[in-house]
Amino acid sequence: MRAVDIIIKKRDKKELTSQEIEFFIQGFTKGDIPDYQASAFAMAVLLNGMTPFETTDLTLAMAKSGQVLDLSKIVDFAVDKHSSGGVGDKTSISVMPMVAACGLPVGKMSGRGLGFSGGTVDKLESIPGYRVDLSTDEFKKQLKEKGIVVTGQSLDLAPADGKLYAIRDVTGTVQSMPLIASSIMSKKIATGVQAIVLDVKTGLGAFMQTLEEARELGELMVDIGRLAGRKTVALLSDMNQPLGSAVGNALETIEAIELLRGRAPKDYYEHCLHVTAHVFVIGQRAKDLDEGRAMAEKCIADGSALEKLRVLVQAQGGDVSYVDDISKFERAKYIEVVPSPRSGFISQVHARLVGEASVALGAGRAKKGDSIDHAVGFLIYKKVGDKVEAGEPLFEIHANSAEKLAEARAAVLSAHAFSDEFVSPLPLFYE
Amino acid sequence: MRAVDIIIKKRDKKELTSQEIEFFIQGFTKGDIPDYQASAFAMAVLLNGMTPFETTDLTLAMAKSGQVLDLSKIVDFAVDKHSSGGVGDKTSISVMPMVAACGLPVGKMSGRGLGFSGGTVDKLESIPGYRVDLSTDEFKKQLKEKGIVVTGQSLDLAPADGKLYAIRDVTGTVQSMPLIASSIMSKKIATGVQAIVLDVKTGLGAFMQTLEEARELGELMVDIGRLAGRKTVALLSDMNQPLGSAVGNALETIEAIELLRGRAPKDYYEHCLHVTAHVFVIGQRAKDLDEGRAMAEKCIADGSALEKLRVLVQAQGGDVSYVDDISKFERAKYIEVVPSPRSGFISQVHARLVGEASVALGAGRAKKGDSIDHAVGFLIYKKVGDKVEAGEPLFEIHANSAEKLAEARAAVLSAHAFSDEFVSPLPLFYE
Repeated sequence: MRAVDIIIKKRDKKELTSQEIEFFIQGFTKGDIPDYQASAFAMAVLLNGMTPFETTDLTLAMAKSGQVLDLSKIVDFAVDKHSSGGVGDKTSISVMPMVAACGLPVGKMSGRGLGFSGGTVDKLESIPGYRVDLSTDEFKKQLKEKGIVVTGQSLDLAPADGKLYAIRDVTGTVQSMPLIASSIMSKKIATGVQAIVLDVKTGLGAFMQTLEEARELGELMVDIGRLAGRKTVALLSDMNQPLGSAVGNALETIEAIELLRGRAPKDYYEHCLHVTAHVFVIGQRAKDLDEGRAMAEKCIADGSALEKLRVLVQAQGGDVSYVDDISKFERAKYIEVVPSPRSGFISQVHARLVGEASVALGAGRAKKGDSIDHAVGFLIYKKVGDKVEAGEPLFEIHANSAEKLAEARAAVLSAHAFSDEFVSPLPLFYE
Repeated sequence: MRAVDIIIKKRDKKELTSQEIEFFIQGFTKGDIPDYQASAFAMAVLLNGMTPFETTDLTLAMAKSGQVLDLSKIVDFAVDKHSSGGVGDKTSISVMPMVAACGLPVGKMSGRGLGFSGGTVDKLESIPGYRVDLSTDEFKKQLKEKGIVVTGQSLDLAPADGKLYAIRDVTGTVQSMPLIASSIMSKKIATGVQAIVLDVKTGLGAFMQTLEEARELGELMVDIGRLAGRKTVALLSDMNQPLGSAVGNALETIEAIELLRGRAPKDYYEHCLHVTAHVFVIGQRAKDLDEGRAMAEKCIADGSALEKLRVLVQAQGGDVSYVDDISKFERAKYIEVVPSPRSGFISQVHARLVGEASVALGAGRAKKGDSIDHAVGFLIYKKVGDKVEAGEPLFEIHANSAEKLAEARAAVLSAHAFSDEFVSPLPLFYE
């Protein structure tokens, strides 16, 4: 078998066999197949596509390129919840403790934020001391003992994916459905969880801008999960406007903690309860979504979810007092409430523009390796469909420089659009 | 400007600007743009195509990646003749001396054979001492003093092409019309000739298997030549069966020399005279093809073309006595005449199968850098349309091992097909 023949086969729109895909990925991981063959292959895949079978083979080959954890020896059943990325999406920080509080072990390895989209581990790092570099042994030990773990991506898992992603990033081959799906799923499969709830975002602030694309990605990942023997469900949720109110690392972490006290913006609360209910159903802790939702509400009401968050933060070296006293979180130097320039109905809060404004404040990275400012960001007060009066508070800016504050004010004002007519609120979920 | 954005633009089927193409090729030549970006770019070009303008820009950028010779300071007008490659195609060795004999300077840098297709410099090397590694200074000096030079490709000319070809070869991106055309034309333009006659082969033994593909390639190269200010004409000629009789390096060189004595298979003779006539017309030495043909015939009849070949061989260090006594050429150990297994009309002599059998005998390279055996090959006696009796000589094998001889016999027999009905001969030229 030769790498060039596999590239040619994909170039000519033919279906690759499992053996061919495994040969390619193994050779690439070991360095026998050079980067320039991998990039030509990625471009051929991007332009000619892959069948779900090929995509599954690619996923499994990347998962098997490193260590594949067997969590069944550690816990009966472990679940993971993954979001395709968006603005203000702090869901994992609220959902994982709720799930663990009901006795379902949750193990998550999460990426960092890149571009306008935030990352769970960046957010959690706004709690001083919180470690996101657990080894796979620490991951397994904590999952067994505490039933909850949320750390960064281990380099031992799916190294082919990391290597291929680095090439894709600089060769224009990121935006490929089979490559995106296999990248996400290879890491989930290597982590060893038995069930995965995928929250696929669609809209202005998501990687998948149309519902059709998001549905295709969701279905593809569910197919891969099923073919790989993992219970998988995909939800399609809105990302035209930011989720909840907070955008920025510490602000989002605070909002996620507050939800576990029953205090949260309505859209974010509904979103988290719906996701959690799905996790309980797929994890066979609830017979249907209604029962799952009731369980989620109960673990908030009785404080058990908040307690599980304390357990998580403590286990990973974080300062637990932050969970109990959110005023301890680092605050930005400048905090400004921006009033609405006019009356009317909110017709748009452009999620991507808000996300990019947040990156510009320092909350995100322009490129890999950049450091981030945890304190900065926004509180968005109004949602699409809300009625607003001129002069009423529209959003709040947290910034560490006066210059950036002014830029952010203009950017987020322009992310808002108004209408004189009534505007329907956006749905939280599409499917 | 960033390389990745140029790749993305081509990935998205947009037309690249001259500046973008030049930036990419310059960066690639200098090593600022790595191989893995070049291979992704090549795959995007292969799958999404390029306009003639883009292809011309790519050609000029590659030509300008190294030294571009200015031959106008050396001779009034220099021409080159290029074949897209085939089996038994020794045309340049006969045509170049005829052209030079009529006072039109000819300068050619030629590639080596690869795969089933032979290369002019490999054939000329069957004359002991013949140098194919002239420097560009030697090239210019010999062109000025002798009016004829045929050497290998200088590394100083179009280095981007050599570098890109090495990548294309191992990433499945060879078979792309714009990449093939720009590769050929960038070298011709860097050589500095003012006029180019392109002999584009089509058929079973050519890289372009269909007439449509060959026509497209021919038109594209003529467009590039015109846009680059070079007089360019493309002929489409048949390569379903080998050209002439001889296949193999020494055997072909002998056949090419013998043509200059007026002794040659009819198809090869007609082919060479037609090509030469075109060179005279484009080089403004003849007003039309008839006059060009008469000139070609005259320089064979009066021995001036043969004399020019002697001048060429001597100038490049070759043993001129080989030109005058072809029995001096190295001969293979085993020479076998294979009789026709049946009577009938020849309906096919599959050029590619003959070419591959010749490579198997050792006349060609399976991969770059392999050494070759100059003595081995075939003499093909019959052409499509010829009548043959059972037992009559069909072809002759020149081999250096008994085992390979047996393999070659079977392979070349299977390349021949017979019909009971009359079969029309193949045309020499299509357009």
